Amino acid sequence: MNYPNGIKKNYKISTSNRGMNLEEDINESNLYYRNNDIAIIYKKPTPITINKVDYKSRTDAVITEAHFTIPSTTDYNGIYKGKYIDFEAKETRKDYFPLANIHKHQIEHLQKIRECGGIGFIIVRFTLKNETYLLEIDKLSNFLDNSNRKSIPKKYFEQNGYLIKQGYRPCLDYLKIIKERYNEEILEEK
Amino acid sequence: MNYPNGIKKNYKISTSNRGMNLEEDINESNLYYRNNDIAIIYKKPTPITINKVDYKSRTDAVITEAHFTIPSTTDYNGIYKGKYIDFEAKETRKDYFPLANIHKHQIEHLQKIRECGGIGFIIVRFTLKNETYLLEIDKLSNFLDNSNRKSIPKKYFEQNGYLIKQGYRPCLDYLKIIKERYNEEILEEK
Repeated sequence: MNYPNGIKKNYKISTSNRGMNLEEDINESNLYYRNNDIAIIYKKPTPITINKVDYKSRTDAVITEAHFTIPSTTDYNGIYKGKYIDFEAKETRKDYFPLANIHKHQIEHLQKIRECGGIGFIIVRFTLKNETYLLEIDKLSNFLDNSNRKSIPKKYFEQNGYLIKQGYRPCLDYLKIIKERYNEEILEEK
Repeated sequence: MNYPNGIKKNYKISTSNRGMNLEEDINESNLYYRNNDIAIIYKKPTPITINKVDYKSRTDAVITEAHFTIPSTTDYNGIYKGKYIDFEAKETRKDYFPLANIHKHQIEHLQKIRECGGIGFIIVRFTLKNETYLLEIDKLSNFLDNSNRKSIPKKYFEQNGYLIKQGYRPCLDYLKIIKERYNEEILEEK
């Protein structure tokens, strides 16, 4: 789908009969986390602006005209071991991450989350190599503060982020990294 | 609008030229909290299932058929003083709160949030008296465990919940109650 500002998002109407993409991997992992009382993290609904609704019957309303709108926050948030979790997830076929793939206000949102004591990061999958990295907002901000580049090299993710292990259950265990990073902090609160 | 299960939600397409309703009061208060670096709390987008998208041009996609879907979680969540906040907000014209107004799995969601160390509650406005109460999930669960009623009397909110002060900025200062309730807990983490 296309956002008003032209940013493309790999939006799927149906997820049947397809290989798993990053969004599906994260949703399945979040379901695993929820079912095992590990964390409660959900993907937010796709933000849209509704223009017309047709009330066909008392129990069925059909939206007949709506537009995709730019998300004001990130796609995913929730709670893990008492800590607020907030992140955005993106795929790229390039061997670098184009900054056009993430909205400036989403980065600012993650920075504010960090200032509020939450855990903010981005998850980026380099699809050609099928490598998925977790990059904390602090490291993302460092890059933006010290570079005028329009993209982040994969090497920066390798050196400043964390490669997320892809397995069976959960298929993308990104909380393993958060647990290791924030272990002390989390233990203190236990 | 009507949900598949018949639960009605007071959905507004346009908010212009109308008196403030509970959702608008909360959104305005959340904006105030964000702008003053007090908390970062957002309303989630309305969950829908998209059936048809018309890609009119490279920069404009129009949803031509979609349906409202039952939300899997609550309408609002975010972070306040490092604590995860999660709640649902409802209006009623009755002098009691019909339990049909809130989904069973939303209540279960709030209970899990509490178990995870988050702060979960519902905000209910009795529109005829224009009184808005915050009722924590524990108190809501207590009522459900000890009653077979299909509704919660307003008196229960008065005795077990907290009347939210309505003012100018923010117009509905519900976090004031959370701050007082969790003050020690929050201070410990400071």
